[in-house]
Amino acid sequence: MVQQQLSDIDIAQSTELLPIQTIAQQLNLKADQYECYGRHKAKVSIDVLKDLQHQKPGHIVLVTSINPTASGEGKSTLTVGLGQALNKIGKNAVIALREPSLGPVMGMKGGAAGGGYSQILPMEDINLHFTGDLHAITSAHNLLAALIDNHIHQGNSLHIDPQRIVWKRVLDLNDRALRQMVIGLGGPANGTPREDGFDITVASEIMAILCLAMDLEDLKARLSRIVIAYSDNKEPITVKDLGAEGALTVLLKDAIHPNLVQTIEHTPAFVHGGPFANIAHGCSSLVATMMAAKLADYCVTEAGFGADLGAEKFLDIKMRTGDLKPSAVVIVATVRALKMHGGVAKSDLQKENLEALQQGVANLKKHMETISHYGLPYVIAINRFTTDTEAELAFLIDWCKANGARAELANVWEEGGQGGIALAEAVVAAIDQESNAFQPLYALHDSIEEKINQIVKKVYGGGRIEFSATAKKQLQAIAAHGWEHLPICIAKTQYSLSDDPTKVGRPEGFTIHIRELVPRIGAGFIVVMTGSILTMPGLPKQPATLNIGLNADGQVEGLF
Amino acid sequence: MVQQQLSDIDIAQSTELLPIQTIAQQLNLKADQYECYGRHKAKVSIDVLKDLQHQKPGHIVLVTSINPTASGEGKSTLTVGLGQALNKIGKNAVIALREPSLGPVMGMKGGAAGGGYSQILPMEDINLHFTGDLHAITSAHNLLAALIDNHIHQGNSLHIDPQRIVWKRVLDLNDRALRQMVIGLGGPANGTPREDGFDITVASEIMAILCLAMDLEDLKARLSRIVIAYSDNKEPITVKDLGAEGALTVLLKDAIHPNLVQTIEHTPAFVHGGPFANIAHGCSSLVATMMAAKLADYCVTEAGFGADLGAEKFLDIKMRTGDLKPSAVVIVATVRALKMHGGVAKSDLQKENLEALQQGVANLKKHMETISHYGLPYVIAINRFTTDTEAELAFLIDWCKANGARAELANVWEEGGQGGIALAEAVVAAIDQESNAFQPLYALHDSIEEKINQIVKKVYGGGRIEFSATAKKQLQAIAAHGWEHLPICIAKTQYSLSDDPTKVGRPEGFTIHIRELVPRIGAGFIVVMTGSILTMPGLPKQPATLNIGLNADGQVEGLF
Repeated sequence: MVQQQLSDIDIAQSTELLPIQTIAQQLNLKADQYECYGRHKAKVSIDVLKDLQHQKPGHIVLVTSINPTASGEGKSTLTVGLGQALNKIGKNAVIALREPSLGPVMGMKGGAAGGGYSQILPMEDINLHFTGDLHAITSAHNLLAALIDNHIHQGNSLHIDPQRIVWKRVLDLNDRALRQMVIGLGGPANGTPREDGFDITVASEIMAILCLAMDLEDLKARLSRIVIAYSDNKEPITVKDLGAEGALTVLLKDAIHPNLVQTIEHTPAFVHGGPFANIAHGCSSLVATMMAAKLADYCVTEAGFGADLGAEKFLDIKMRTGDLKPSAVVIVATVRALKMHGGVAKSDLQKENLEALQQGVANLKKHMETISHYGLPYVIAINRFTTDTEAELAFLIDWCKANGARAELANVWEEGGQGGIALAEAVVAAIDQESNAFQPLYALHDSIEEKINQIVKKVYGGGRIEFSATAKKQLQAIAAHGWEHLPICIAKTQYSLSDDPTKVGRPEGFTIHIRELVPRIGAGFIVVMTGSILTMPGLPKQPATLNIGLNADGQVEGLF
Repeated sequence: MVQQQLSDIDIAQSTELLPIQTIAQQLNLKADQYECYGRHKAKVSIDVLKDLQHQKPGHIVLVTSINPTASGEGKSTLTVGLGQALNKIGKNAVIALREPSLGPVMGMKGGAAGGGYSQILPMEDINLHFTGDLHAITSAHNLLAALIDNHIHQGNSLHIDPQRIVWKRVLDLNDRALRQMVIGLGGPANGTPREDGFDITVASEIMAILCLAMDLEDLKARLSRIVIAYSDNKEPITVKDLGAEGALTVLLKDAIHPNLVQTIEHTPAFVHGGPFANIAHGCSSLVATMMAAKLADYCVTEAGFGADLGAEKFLDIKMRTGDLKPSAVVIVATVRALKMHGGVAKSDLQKENLEALQQGVANLKKHMETISHYGLPYVIAINRFTTDTEAELAFLIDWCKANGARAELANVWEEGGQGGIALAEAVVAAIDQESNAFQPLYALHDSIEEKINQIVKKVYGGGRIEFSATAKKQLQAIAAHGWEHLPICIAKTQYSLSDDPTKVGRPEGFTIHIRELVPRIGAGFIVVMTGSILTMPGLPKQPATLNIGLNADGQVEGLF
């Protein structure tokens, strides 16, 4: 296995794509149910969901992972590969993934369209402007910000307290210099000076809203409920108070339709929405998942970061909002990351180390238990890397079996769907043979503290919860404003089950520190901030940007 | 004539559009020469220009106007109407217009897709995100800004002086609070604190570049030459020094292809690029004009504001850059605006006032002389408004004839192409019968002062030119850096021939005050700032935004 000889973009550009109309026809979509954006992208009308309202949905398979290393465990690649593999064994599968953000693409992380022979295409378009959804969100978000400052400038009849504006601005870029600023300088013609800052677009509440809205009406209702500021007497002021929900909906009227593309093996894939998995719920759009499930027997989708973050939010927020029941979960694990959880330094991960692996599987064990808490069948996918030794792989498979779990090696980066056939068969078997008693972890009528408690105890395996003085005050305000019934969305480091990124493996008895609570009433959840979470990344010393260009044939180079 | 009973959007939404493929076929485009963006928009590959390089271009007709009132004189509507009318009289015409900016659409001015029965459609899409060109420019512009701050943060090996960064940030919005700000606050992790500000996207040098680039290679070369800052020893630092030209080109690789739509009468229209007409050259893209001229016998296109701004830059910058020769100019005049130039207050413009009209025609006279300076035939288009009286119209037509000019009434808002037939015939006659000795006003090897002098004397009719101390220093720097050979792009109020918006009519002997010179080396011109020009508009007390929404049928309401 020499898996990195060809780059992702080389493989992508050597693939002959089918016209997107052909992919749409595979899904039995009629010509008036979708619009083409160029030759290989389409937007499928959300009205398809109405047309298919009486059709029984197919199986929803969630792909999640152990706590990842900084470079990720190949969850998107695995999701694409599993979708392709299900089609190879005669099942009818559609993939639902998140849209990449331009910030990381131009920064360090690279694209988010899978890899190798398990990619979604055209990866250059998907990783750049795609069909403009993120740009629409940026426009809507910043229009709202401009309306707020304009409202104050023009007389402030709503009595907005300029120091209690909770609506920042956004750009789909990594730009640390915009994190904190003072705006409105230069005299009265330029508005009221105040502190402000930019987040990355994927951290916008509008992104979270787009990903949870069931239709245009629900989108508008959610936008109306966004809290933008507090008044002089500390009452919440909403988008509806400002009267901007109509224009914001108009700016998002195209973005709400799921985007259809294909994988390298021509499996249909919806790529729609991409909220941050730490500050928001980190799942692709609900409408895309619903559409994929209605149009196929299996919808394979993923949630951001490890099961403690992504899967928890997928199950407690996204599935509950859509009144959906997932059929199975795939937990992606790598030998590399498990050795890291066993205490191995990043620079030594390439060396065989069975002892570390034996230590590190505790992290995987916790995530297996978590999925069981939700009453769901699961399969462990061991995503192969060239540096894995046979002894390590053998140990890991044996360990999974000894722990009563289905586990399969997957090699979908190199082999495409072919490399995921055993996994696909295991997933089908788990769905067909195991019981499914899915239920969310907490009840909506539980208090916010109780919801946090359930997640910290059952998903993180933590001991105590400590609220900051600010958080305690905010708990009271949330109750006073009648927002206690909402689900919670915990913002936490992805590297550890705890809120301390250095605590690898399966830490126990730790304390989770709740710094702040941020009501996102439009999205419909309360963000619970643990530790400090950056909502605007920075660029590295050598940004990926500097390698990107067009070659003499007009093809994009340097995207990865 | 009750011309405002139906709104623009009502008329637009009652029109049955042809599939964009049908429009493309009308132009003899092959399926592989364009890509559809939905059903009614397409991007036509710039490679078409290569395919047609040996074909003789059709006639380029420029639509310009007298100095306008704040609400404009209907130049875009007239351009669309004239294109439709040419087709009605059996000529083969294609229209080339600018893309609207979301800022004014959501602010005060409304859309920019023509009006009434002379609109380009789908106006909702064109006025909102369209095919994403403006978003691509916003992304590229702000990525460059982020790279500059990141370069400084990561060690500043180019020795950028943080106080001499000349590259601001942009958003496609009206947002006065972002005009002046201090960024990089919050400690060393957030970069270096410095003053900064946002312009509206249409004021970006990248917009000007996109509109003047001949192909992808030229685009990249122009991007490379952008001056982003000056070093500690005051030397210019460019995009090439930063190594970002490849990534910026990639972000603009789709935006460079002209967008094809149709008018209400199914005349093909390219809508591509829309630089500010005061701070930049204010014309739609050169490639779209070239393409329209290659694909039809007549290309009807417009330039922003009055002939003193738009036409001058169209002729001295755009035509020269493309090595093109226009065939004729249409000068749009309205009774309303001429009465304003005769000293009538805005509130009294609806009343008949022949004396004021007699005074005001002096403004029109100056623009007629200007076009003659360029050696071009012209036709005066009197754009009818319901408030014009028969006596006023008769006076104006007689006056034009007495001054040896072709002049025709046009009623294209209400009647579409039918209302522009006489005008179309006059344009064809002017092209066929009159001599054309087109040449730009100044030579590129003239000094910057001499270029300014030529325009102030021959186009504005001014007396003296006064340079600020700053401008004088900048003249020296421009010479020292070897930029004197570039054309100039004067930023001036559109309301007067002078730099004082209150001086209506045909002021004489006035002084033009040159405040500042801004080298735009990527765009390929030196911006000459007179008076104070806002590059980021603000929202009005009642922004158009608040009327915009979707109705129960999912149609956009409140756009105009």
